[in-house]
Amino acid sequence: MSDVSKYTGVFPIAPTPFNPDGSIDWKSADRLFNCYNEIGSDGATVLGIMGEAPKLEPHESLELLKRAVKALAGKPIIVGVSAPGFAAMRSLAREAMEAGAASVMIAPPNTLRTDDQIVGYYVQAVEAIGADVPFVIQDYPLITNVVMTPGVIRRIVTDNPSCVMLKAEDWPGLEKISLLRKWQAEGSLRPLGIMVANGGLFLDFEMDRGADGSNTGYAFPEMLIEVVRHAKAGNRDAAHDLFDAHLPLLRYEQQPVLGLAVRKYVMMRRGILASDAQRKPGSVLTATAKAEVDYLLARLARTDKRAAL
Amino acid sequence: MSDVSKYTGVFPIAPTPFNPDGSIDWKSADRLFNCYNEIGSDGATVLGIMGEAPKLEPHESLELLKRAVKALAGKPIIVGVSAPGFAAMRSLAREAMEAGAASVMIAPPNTLRTDDQIVGYYVQAVEAIGADVPFVIQDYPLITNVVMTPGVIRRIVTDNPSCVMLKAEDWPGLEKISLLRKWQAEGSLRPLGIMVANGGLFLDFEMDRGADGSNTGYAFPEMLIEVVRHAKAGNRDAAHDLFDAHLPLLRYEQQPVLGLAVRKYVMMRRGILASDAQRKPGSVLTATAKAEVDYLLARLARTDKRAAL
Amino acid sequence: MSDVSKYTGVFPIAPTPFNPDGSIDWKSADRLFNCYNEIGSDGATVLGIMGEAPKLEPHESLELLKRAVKALAGKPIIVGVSAPGFAAMRSLAREAMEAGAASVMIAPPNTLRTDDQIVGYYVQAVEAIGADVPFVIQDYPLITNVVMTPGVIRRIVTDNPSCVMLKAEDWPGLEKISLLRKWQAEGSLRPLGIMVANGGLFLDFEMDRGADGSNTGYAFPEMLIEVVRHAKAGNRDAAHDLFDAHLPLLRYEQQPVLGLAVRKYVMMRRGILASDAQRKPGSVLTATAKAEVDYLLARLARTDKRAAL
Amino acid sequence: MSDVSKYTGVFPIAPTPFNPDGSIDWKSADRLFNCYNEIGSDGATVLGIMGEAPKLEPHESLELLKRAVKALAGKPIIVGVSAPGFAAMRSLAREAMEAGAASVMIAPPNTLRTDDQIVGYYVQAVEAIGADVPFVIQDYPLITNVVMTPGVIRRIVTDNPSCVMLKAEDWPGLEKISLLRKWQAEGSLRPLGIMVANGGLFLDFEMDRGADGSNTGYAFPEMLIEVVRHAKAGNRDAAHDLFDAHLPLLRYEQQPVLGLAVRKYVMMRRGILASDAQRKPGSVLTATAKAEVDYLLARLARTDKRAAL
Repeated sequence: MSDVSKYTGVFPIAPTPFNPDGSIDWKSADRLFNCYNEIGSDGATVLGIMGEAPKLEPHESLELLKRAVKALAGKPIIVGVSAPGFAAMRSLAREAMEAGAASVMIAPPNTLRTDDQIVGYYVQAVEAIGADVPFVIQDYPLITNVVMTPGVIRRIVTDNPSCVMLKAEDWPGLEKISLLRKWQAEGSLRPLGIMVANGGLFLDFEMDRGADGSNTGYAFPEMLIEVVRHAKAGNRDAAHDLFDAHLPLLRYEQQPVLGLAVRKYVMMRRGILASDAQRKPGSVLTATAKAEVDYLLARLARTDKRAAL
Repeated sequence: MSDVSKYTGVFPIAPTPFNPDGSIDWKSADRLFNCYNEIGSDGATVLGIMGEAPKLEPHESLELLKRAVKALAGKPIIVGVSAPGFAAMRSLAREAMEAGAASVMIAPPNTLRTDDQIVGYYVQAVEAIGADVPFVIQDYPLITNVVMTPGVIRRIVTDNPSCVMLKAEDWPGLEKISLLRKWQAEGSLRPLGIMVANGGLFLDFEMDRGADGSNTGYAFPEMLIEVVRHAKAGNRDAAHDLFDAHLPLLRYEQQPVLGLAVRKYVMMRRGILASDAQRKPGSVLTATAKAEVDYLLARLARTDKRAAL
Repeated sequence: MSDVSKYTGVFPIAPTPFNPDGSIDWKSADRLFNCYNEIGSDGATVLGIMGEAPKLEPHESLELLKRAVKALAGKPIIVGVSAPGFAAMRSLAREAMEAGAASVMIAPPNTLRTDDQIVGYYVQAVEAIGADVPFVIQDYPLITNVVMTPGVIRRIVTDNPSCVMLKAEDWPGLEKISLLRKWQAEGSLRPLGIMVANGGLFLDFEMDRGADGSNTGYAFPEMLIEVVRHAKAGNRDAAHDLFDAHLPLLRYEQQPVLGLAVRKYVMMRRGILASDAQRKPGSVLTATAKAEVDYLLARLARTDKRAAL
Repeated sequence: MSDVSKYTGVFPIAPTPFNPDGSIDWKSADRLFNCYNEIGSDGATVLGIMGEAPKLEPHESLELLKRAVKALAGKPIIVGVSAPGFAAMRSLAREAMEAGAASVMIAPPNTLRTDDQIVGYYVQAVEAIGADVPFVIQDYPLITNVVMTPGVIRRIVTDNPSCVMLKAEDWPGLEKISLLRKWQAEGSLRPLGIMVANGGLFLDFEMDRGADGSNTGYAFPEMLIEVVRHAKAGNRDAAHDLFDAHLPLLRYEQQPVLGLAVRKYVMMRRGILASDAQRKPGSVLTATAKAEVDYLLARLARTDKRAAL
């Protein structure tokens, strides 16, 4: 069984920085990964949906991963490898591991329906990538339209020793986390990292329910890090206070399709990215939307100086 | 446990006859049900999707059922009661049973995803309609978008003694029928009627696989009856010969939305229905489509005199 | 064209109060509707999804509506009439109007796909309920899986003079509201009430974008009323301050399936409902979830005394 | 505008031949493509869904294409390039064109809903692959869950001069073909190849409605070729006679997931493929299913000697 203990803390989901002409902005990429490292991230995820992975050429994907591996030296990098075919998944997974990734993340395709189909899919995926490649289950029904019961997750984890983590973003998902943790306490489910996402919308309570940390891409990863630390230290009120201060902006990021545009815009305003450009086809913020984000940042700056831009 | 032995042979799915002004054509309804009885149907289903049930007022639905019960005196009538809410399902089910129905048919709502959700839904449905009301599972993923594994069907059947029949229209469904029959032979699944539908497209082989009969609405139910009899008598070639002769027309009926218009048009040409009208909103055949059906009927008439209209 | 000017302000979505035995708690229903009236609601919606409408018998639905009409004397009541069939929709719509409803709300069925199908559906619905019955378009793709472009909404509004309001809960929906308002300013879209929902998650900015008000069921409708008033008075900061204070709890309500349980629990704790029971099949809060809500209420009470329970 | 006149006749959809160990069986591939050429195919499609494209490595895909190009020397080869990301689509399209493909086929992703989204997607796809690459629209809602109205197809064709063909497999689709042909006759839609698929289930009438030919993978492409020739020569009865003789087997192929297994099994029995193996994960026929296919072949052999195996 792979080492699951390192899947804890905060692993930001990295956006891919682009220049306005659509080429990758490598300087911003380095700055972004260095930023993640310096603020105390425990790892990172690259080439996820929010990383615009499907728009990247294979050599770009690999280069991006290598830079993340280097900047976050020693910290685990998860690489999204979901693909419609097992050939592409296998290639990307093998290459990613060679380039220094710690594990790969696999979401189920939206054609799966029954419990057995879902379980069977992960068996096939592991057969494709190799049982030696640690993998993460992405449980995100809002996007995948695939609903995994806690029992299905247990079957996948039990059947596949190379499963190291659950990226838990079911909605609602609080009781699911509680039940999985209960099963582990009882010994009917083996150890497994559980990191939460869903844009961070329930991070405060997910930590209370036993999550190991956060694996999402909010534009202020420092907040995620502090909330997770507070929660682990038992400072519940402090965790909620900080979380609540960021909630209006974090909530604004929860707009499908537009969320990435908001994140990149804030990261640009923060000086982390040189541009908020997305590679085509991408979403753009209207002037009104940018003004709304600016307003939220100004309000946030009253309690969190980092937002004073 | 309810009596499952009567769910065998051919139960035509009845269309609801309308006058061109949208009112129910009761005379045609009586003629239709009498026709079903005289040609040797073993029962019938009313108020299914093909019966335009959602367009009927409750008193119309009940009257239609009563006429079917009367015309097919003694033969079991299945009534479709699928509804978005359990209140409506309960009302219709109780009223249908009082009016002489043999059982009710329930399709799962298209929001169900996991195995447990499907099994749980049938538990709730039985709680709503009462455990004394025999019911039929409709397994029709092409329409419901709900996929039931053989194991899920076994759980529903085992959990609910009032389940009397499976309307099997998964696609493909041949191996499913074989597996359920195997489980029954081994004793791990209790007796249960299995009648097939899916427009009849695989009736020939479904009978070979062990189906009890047909529960569909093809415009020549006599063909279904003869094919089922041939199959049960072991006359495999005769069953296929007759089936194959009808296949071009039966295939033409397999057009979603248009299928009912084809059936009603053929039944009108056969003199069973006075009109092929549907209550609004309904589908209509173009002149070209009618000419295609006429052409198919003319070709069919070369081997089946019933099609010489 | 119907009068659209009354669709403004706050119309709470009413839950249906039940006793623990599943019968309707009429006393709580009266208290709830009186509460809506006294705090300054401008109307209300009954028999929506959150009203557990599909579990009610027709006579219960009608009685509930009549009590709402009486308690909110003179204020418009919207009645949800979405149904899988036009017969049921027509019956409920006609009965609702006779019982004093101001208008009916219709969501598109989740089988619609193309622009023309959606537009055509509303034409058929109006034909069914009658062109004299004012109706509300419910645009809620997260639940209905039907995506209406602004252009499709304009076609529906233009084709059907009886359309009085858009319940806008697309996600994201801010730009949609802005565009519809722009079209109205330019004269290419006639006047129409636009009230927002989606659980209230974006109410603050939706008001900035030009919404007429809120049509959702948050457990503190007083907050919705004050935010809408602040927004209309141009007190942007005050609107956001109050909204942000409630956001952690409001966000907690945003859990599909569980949201209603949270609302009923808070309303019970507030003394508005005698019980948080749902008619079966319903969702229930675990003890942990209730403690989380209590914690959120205690935190909210620091700034909003109404939450000090 | 690209040359659309060559998209006529029969373009078989090629399966990818594998050895039992999962490697590509190049010898069978050559035999298959030579067979297509010798029987009079007018072109072919490779790397479609039925070609198990997502399981192939990029170099395998390219090699397969090159062999098809060589064997069918001079005849147009269509290459499936549908992909979740435009980067992969662009790479494959450019490489395919360099390797001799005539055009690429693009199906819309199943997340598209509105008319504008569908039209916009094709604009983006053309931007990705280049306006100089001829492309085919695949209209297959049963698989893609995307419904394109005739009007949407016209917009795509009009907006993109590089569109050369519609692969028409809507279901039902007869009236759609008639309407598109009517628009072309009226001059409101420019010339465009319309080839039909859907497993061939409606080929007989689709030719009557004006289709240019067939683009499907039935195991006896000779039948498709003869039916298309008869239809084009005005021999309607002869076309239907031959089609009807094959319909029982062709219908048996219409089983989702299992269809490819049936095709490969028949092609193996015909001596075209050395094995009916699929690369993992694949579907397999049970002994019972194989016996059913054998039975159908034996029956077919009574009228078509090619089926006497």
